[in-house]
Amino acid sequence: MLFGGIEAGGTKFVCAVGDEKKNAIKRTQIPTTIPEETLARVIRFFEGFELDAIGIGSFGPADVHPKSPTYGMLTTTPKTAWRNVPLMQRIHDRFRVPVGFQTDVNAAALGEAAFGAAQGLDSCLYITVGTGIGAGAVIHEKLLHGLSHPEMGHILVRRHPNDEYPGRCPYHQDCLEGLASGPAIEDRWGEKGVLLKEREEVWKLEGYYIAQALMQYILILSPQKVILGGGVMKQELIWVHIRQYLKELLNDYIDFPQLSSRMDDYIVPPQLGDDAGVKGALVLADQARQEAKGRGD
Amino acid sequence: MLFGGIEAGGTKFVCAVGDEKKNAIKRTQIPTTIPEETLARVIRFFEGFELDAIGIGSFGPADVHPKSPTYGMLTTTPKTAWRNVPLMQRIHDRFRVPVGFQTDVNAAALGEAAFGAAQGLDSCLYITVGTGIGAGAVIHEKLLHGLSHPEMGHILVRRHPNDEYPGRCPYHQDCLEGLASGPAIEDRWGEKGVLLKEREEVWKLEGYYIAQALMQYILILSPQKVILGGGVMKQELIWVHIRQYLKELLNDYIDFPQLSSRMDDYIVPPQLGDDAGVKGALVLADQARQEAKGRGD
Ligand SMILES: Nc1ncnc2c1ncn2[C@@H]1O[C@H](COP(=O)(O)OP(=O)(O)O)[C@@H](O)[C@H]1O
Ligand SMILES: Nc1ncnc2c1ncn2[C@@H]1O[C@H](COP(=O)(O)OP(=O)(O)O)[C@@H](O)[C@H]1O
Ligand SMILES: [Zn+2]
Ligand SMILES: [Zn+2]
Repeated sequence: MLFGGIEAGGTKFVCAVGDEKKNAIKRTQIPTTIPEETLARVIRFFEGFELDAIGIGSFGPADVHPKSPTYGMLTTTPKTAWRNVPLMQRIHDRFRVPVGFQTDVNAAALGEAAFGAAQGLDSCLYITVGTGIGAGAVIHEKLLHGLSHPEMGHILVRRHPNDEYPGRCPYHQDCLEGLASGPAIEDRWGEKGVLLKEREEVWKLEGYYIAQALMQYILILSPQKVILGGGVMKQELIWVHIRQYLKELLNDYIDFPQLSSRMDDYIVPPQLGDDAGVKGALVLADQARQEAKGRGD
Repeated sequence: MLFGGIEAGGTKFVCAVGDEKKNAIKRTQIPTTIPEETLARVIRFFEGFELDAIGIGSFGPADVHPKSPTYGMLTTTPKTAWRNVPLMQRIHDRFRVPVGFQTDVNAAALGEAAFGAAQGLDSCLYITVGTGIGAGAVIHEKLLHGLSHPEMGHILVRRHPNDEYPGRCPYHQDCLEGLASGPAIEDRWGEKGVLLKEREEVWKLEGYYIAQALMQYILILSPQKVILGGGVMKQELIWVHIRQYLKELLNDYIDFPQLSSRMDDYIVPPQLGDDAGVKGALVLADQARQEAKGRGD
């Protein structure tokens, strides 16, 4: 059995061919330019393999609702050349095998659940703090998906009394993403996050907001592991503040070592690093194959 | 096949014997006095039936973690006569059949998912606003349970700028439960909720907090139906304010009719009314039977 995995990102596409254990037997990176060029190279990479199914974890906004007319398409993405590109359909038309399609963060969550920091656990939450804030939850090997896919980046947080930055979410102004995404950090402090490394107050405030979000996620979902990825989380100072604020907020309400003495082992960075997405895409491929089989396709 | 269902409440125990479709063929209510007396009456009710399994939805705090040494017990409950009573064990010792044990709100969620407002859907969220605020989520016929069971009543909300009530949660002071439970309403306004019916400002503020909670729950869990029960929700005025604030908060961010024109059909009261808990207990019984069978007991 052979699977194809595609992590379709705004700057690059990571592609892999995986064996039935989802070990990558071939892998490549293709820069994201215009759709025709990038997709032609993606297709060329997979040619010559007898794939049983393909999984795609895509940048967005992308439509991941199977019943929607625009399912499998990039919709209102800021990368204008990619707007309304039927990514899933293009791949399906070429290879004629089941194709699974999900958001990039959901794919990364699946990858970490199957092979990374949450391997062997029943549930995990994967959060990315980067250009946007998004999260995916895996429960019993499946992605959480109800009415819509979760939109956890837009939850409400309490503003810090000294924070005068108004927030930049076009829908909610000062929701979590509006206050704590990478671009919000840059806006508030006047410099890119990567250049603010030594400014403790920056990462303290960032930890203040992320800790609140984790409190809500943990009380509502109770995941067995919380994985924090994305560019902003590369700042080491944040981690200390997140854990400290979260302990204060929870105030020993939930009596589990994961939320007190062993928090370092509960709130962790991705174990697969940059491979979480493409590994998860291989898992998506397998799930698409099994679903198609279940339907008798 | 016969199932026993027990909704163990702080004021009364509702018991039912259900057939294999979980239709109640016999039902009773027993007042909650001291454990010896109440449990003797519960046991007497079920005697004479060849039960295949029993389900209990219990008031709390109760320990619902199968691996815990106090599993199946009421723990630090304010009803002191019931502290440390091994409720599940007592029932099991007498009937020697598989016993499922859950919180009351989780049982009600299961009942509404199987037979009530969320029948036929893949997921639902059941929230109770009463002496405490609690919620249970059902996803693919199973209760959401990860590290711990969810503790959704204690999430953070943004205080209303004119609300000077400090909140009464012993852990978090002004978390949702601290600001919006029945006792918080009584504390803040100096009278029981049931006597404040005509005071629009009471229910507007209550709606303000509950709408925020629903925003977080919906963005994080994305349930296909949201059911609001408990004594406080009997106030009709709240419903209007909840839906109105929630629409403002979401600001069309999620483009689903359930969250705009059809919100009345998305955020609803329990359909089973006071029977949600005992119906859910019958579902728990069946799940306990199937799990025991899976383990080969
Ligand atoms: N090392 C870093 N420290 C702080 N901020 C960073 C770092 N790397 C990237 N960022 C910020 O994170 C955002 C990009 O997020 P990233 O996760 O790298 O990509 P994306 O979310 O676009 O996939 C930008 O706003 C950038 O300024
Ligand atoms: N009709 C009502 N209107 C407003 N508040 C009510 C009403 N009925 C009960 N309450 C309040 O709800 C709380 C009791 O919640 P309830 O759901 O009835 O029971 P419990 O949560 O104890 O199982 C009390 O604080 C009570 O004042
Ligand atoms: Zn937002
Ligand atoms: Zn609290």
